[in-house]
Amino acid sequence: MANSAQGELRGGIDLGGTKIEAIIVDDANTVLGIARIPTPTTGGPSDVATAMAGVIQQAALAASVEVARLAGIGVGSPGTVDRQAGSVSGARNLPGWTGSFPLAAKLEALLGRPVAVGNDVEVATNAEHVLGAGKPYDSLLGVFWGTGIGGGIVLERKLWLGRGGAGEIGHTVIRQNGRRCTCGRRGCLEAYAGRAAMEIRARKLHEGGMHTDLFEIMSQHGHDRLTSGIWQRAIESGDKLAHKLVDRAVSALGAGIASAVNLLEVEAVIIGGGLGVRFGHPYVERIAAEMRPHLFVDDRPPPVHLAGLGDLGGALGAALEAPRRGPALTAISGRLDG
Amino acid sequence: MANSAQGELRGGIDLGGTKIEAIIVDDANTVLGIARIPTPTTGGPSDVATAMAGVIQQAALAASVEVARLAGIGVGSPGTVDRQAGSVSGARNLPGWTGSFPLAAKLEALLGRPVAVGNDVEVATNAEHVLGAGKPYDSLLGVFWGTGIGGGIVLERKLWLGRGGAGEIGHTVIRQNGRRCTCGRRGCLEAYAGRAAMEIRARKLHEGGMHTDLFEIMSQHGHDRLTSGIWQRAIESGDKLAHKLVDRAVSALGAGIASAVNLLEVEAVIIGGGLGVRFGHPYVERIAAEMRPHLFVDDRPPPVHLAGLGDLGGALGAALEAPRRGPALTAISGRLDG
Repeated sequence: MANSAQGELRGGIDLGGTKIEAIIVDDANTVLGIARIPTPTTGGPSDVATAMAGVIQQAALAASVEVARLAGIGVGSPGTVDRQAGSVSGARNLPGWTGSFPLAAKLEALLGRPVAVGNDVEVATNAEHVLGAGKPYDSLLGVFWGTGIGGGIVLERKLWLGRGGAGEIGHTVIRQNGRRCTCGRRGCLEAYAGRAAMEIRARKLHEGGMHTDLFEIMSQHGHDRLTSGIWQRAIESGDKLAHKLVDRAVSALGAGIASAVNLLEVEAVIIGGGLGVRFGHPYVERIAAEMRPHLFVDDRPPPVHLAGLGDLGGALGAALEAPRRGPALTAISGRLDG
Repeated sequence: MANSAQGELRGGIDLGGTKIEAIIVDDANTVLGIARIPTPTTGGPSDVATAMAGVIQQAALAASVEVARLAGIGVGSPGTVDRQAGSVSGARNLPGWTGSFPLAAKLEALLGRPVAVGNDVEVATNAEHVLGAGKPYDSLLGVFWGTGIGGGIVLERKLWLGRGGAGEIGHTVIRQNGRRCTCGRRGCLEAYAGRAAMEIRARKLHEGGMHTDLFEIMSQHGHDRLTSGIWQRAIESGDKLAHKLVDRAVSALGAGIASAVNLLEVEAVIIGGGLGVRFGHPYVERIAAEMRPHLFVDDRPPPVHLAGLGDLGGALGAALEAPRRGPALTAISGRLDG
């Protein structure tokens, strides 16, 4: 894409359950190269790390730079991330990822560059705050509507991590003793609005005799699960079951997000994630409308925005985590001058 | 109580819908005198302010000090508080309180001392954080289980106020399209667990033919509503309807508080409020047990504590808000020395 890049370059890798996406950015966070591969479905963490190293090399190739020129590489990973140790545990959607794996150390060994790891939802929230739709605000709630429902919180212009696992808006109880969630609990927002839960529900209703084209569209496009694109096609073709389930998801999101706003009173809400980005503005407005009846401070509903970085938010957020040369040099020169 | 008080003295007034409580404290927040009167049920904000001035004078008398000796007086008020302006609006439980009223200015005119006003739930949360069960923690959620369900949030050892109205955990949606809340919305936690909502529900079930001694106990004690003490007596005498409604409230609190913990991952939860303090430790443990099935990070549930300051938390929190002489003098001497 660009072969005359100036200044310090960084890499960002968005590790997802379906795809791994890597980018190269410059000082201004301009994307110089992108590469994308499907996430390995077999093997273990070490194989995933090898695939990640491959895709960052492809992104560097696309940007016409050497990986060796990168100041550092940042990773956004699912699961529980220990930022200090650079390790990841509990990444349920990745193959054979049992226990904790030293992802940063493994990638550093493969690539010869410093690597930092953050949680995928947290880095995507930070990206929206620093570069995207959240730029004007000091506090915000990022809601990522995809396979699950992820959430990230920015307060006083900083990510709020709690004891490390904050932001789990997907597991807000919106219906006590309600539907079984993919997490095993009952009545979670994600049990009504997560794409995985919506697919389970669609299959059940379809098997129970309700008509839907969802699974036919899925087969036609050679998929084995209901992607965001399949949901969109079914909605556009007026599929009643798809409409029913998406309407239910939107209403659940409205209740769950309004509850979070009642608690935190953030300045804005940002909607991202696979389904959020795919459905876009009209659905962001529908979510805002479904929030309104539940907002306790109802004379100043917070603005609800579509994620400004679209699908790239995860990789850009990862790149924001990447270790840099700059600050360290400044610190040293500061010490020499002082 | 004490007539040889040393150092700087402050007043605190907890303005409630039922009672107004005032205290005098010293530098160490030791309570030197207490007074309590019923909240006026007629008149308007000006009459309430006059009653408040009277009760702080009674508390000063009890402490054997002059109101003129107080460095300042703090107030915890229901409704929406503008801290800068010292004004209160939307205090629905107080007589004739329509629009905004300059409570601090009115009290300063009546008492001749500087007055600061904060929201009642916020100051009570701060009191638990600074002086009570929340002392060991950098972050916590205070839940005040009374007529309504109030909430206060401390993050990084500071109250989180959002855009001014944060903490409304009582209006977390725990059941979409559920029971009508006293706020007019549907399915709020407060609609299941607030004492006002529980009384409405008890009346309805009683009128529908269910047996309960709740209203008989109420008449025997000369009350016209179901106080925390009446609920406790009914529970202790094995009243089935009272048990049913309190069980429902505890389960609703478990779901609502767990959702807030999933979002914020605070280090601890503190349970206060009229019903919370009255029911005490066994019910705090029951709430903690009801939270557990909903906690997403389930290997380290946050400790759930009973409010350490009991009924006095509101007045102590108010006293913590009181303007002080000390810091101002220090600042001046700092400037002179500098």
